Amino acid sequence: MPRGRRRVEDPATARRILAAAESHFAAQGLEGARTEEIALAAHANKAMLYYYFGDKKRLHRAVLENLLRQLRSSVFARPKNKLTPRERFFLIVNGYFDFLAAHPNYPRLVQRQAMEAGTGFEWMVKEFFRPLHREFARTVEEAIRAGEFRKVDPDQIALMTLQMTTSYFAAAAVLSRVIGNNLLDPEAVAARKRALLDFLRHGLATEGAKD
Amino acid sequence: MPRGRRRVEDPATARRILAAAESHFAAQGLEGARTEEIALAAHANKAMLYYYFGDKKRLHRAVLENLLRQLRSSVFARPKNKLTPRERFFLIVNGYFDFLAAHPNYPRLVQRQAMEAGTGFEWMVKEFFRPLHREFARTVEEAIRAGEFRKVDPDQIALMTLQMTTSYFAAAAVLSRVIGNNLLDPEAVAARKRALLDFLRHGLATEGAKD
Repeated sequence: MPRGRRRVEDPATARRILAAAESHFAAQGLEGARTEEIALAAHANKAMLYYYFGDKKRLHRAVLENLLRQLRSSVFARPKNKLTPRERFFLIVNGYFDFLAAHPNYPRLVQRQAMEAGTGFEWMVKEFFRPLHREFARTVEEAIRAGEFRKVDPDQIALMTLQMTTSYFAAAAVLSRVIGNNLLDPEAVAARKRALLDFLRHGLATEGAKD
Repeated sequence: MPRGRRRVEDPATARRILAAAESHFAAQGLEGARTEEIALAAHANKAMLYYYFGDKKRLHRAVLENLLRQLRSSVFARPKNKLTPRERFFLIVNGYFDFLAAHPNYPRLVQRQAMEAGTGFEWMVKEFFRPLHREFARTVEEAIRAGEFRKVDPDQIALMTLQMTTSYFAAAAVLSRVIGNNLLDPEAVAARKRALLDFLRHGLATEGAKD
């Protein structure tokens, strides 16, 4: 059935299913989300969803892998120009912040997985989080050795920096109510980025060196 | 039935139910947790659970209120001695950190509520998070005015400080796998506290004032 087959292999349909799955899983979790509703939202049907992704669990993994690959290639890409470790540190922070601002589903999906902390998390840790954390912490270490950062604990600084960034976006809906304005407004996001970068510059600066 | 009644009003039973409910809700959420299992873990029965707490939703709220009241009274209590705003800021940070270390269920419960971000969160925001955030941010503001902190955005510093602390404990299980050792080990917790306080001291210090 070459004709029917061609229609099913429409990559736009697979992309729509992936996009719909991303927001459904972010809102309702792996358990709560329903493949019927995902297919419907993607203007597809369940048969297509299963044809492309196998089952709900594999679809969920495809959603996460898709986001994590984007994260890795955009945030942790080796820049062409030679940077000092400090410059590279701030490039990663900026990139991670912008990635989160552009992918509001990402922190919720990861936070859900982290809370369950079951076997479903192991591949993410091994393939993405551990190597990316190590690279980020090593950048801090190199900046200390180069005299660009004061002597800090690289693991802790790497974790704290990512946590301040991730949890801002993960908890934005609730924090907006605590603060009293929408923390996802472009101005609020820009203010947060300024505050984060300023805080890091001062928190990591060697004595007397705060540009 | 004075005898039967007295047995039912045993406050130790109510406390055991509350404690069991806390860990069940933290692990499985409001939806996932089952009152039968909570009662069983508390060496009680469902009738007692309903007698003391009404229903599952009210039991869940009782768990959160119990923790939030402890948080408020231990972390935000007005100290007897006169402190400078900077001293008070670090007293709150220390207290909040210690509260989280002692109450591992708290961040997971709150994070679950925050992710759902439904109406179930409104009372927490109104009665606890908003007033506590304002008090913490005001302390930063006063420290700036007193010349103890450099000029920073008090709301952002308050949020970032609490987020670094909360998400360490909320994500400890997963972060332990990323880092490769148990982040809830007493030594790891102590190392994190040192790193956090050190980062804050440097990040907030006025030029040349880092004790």
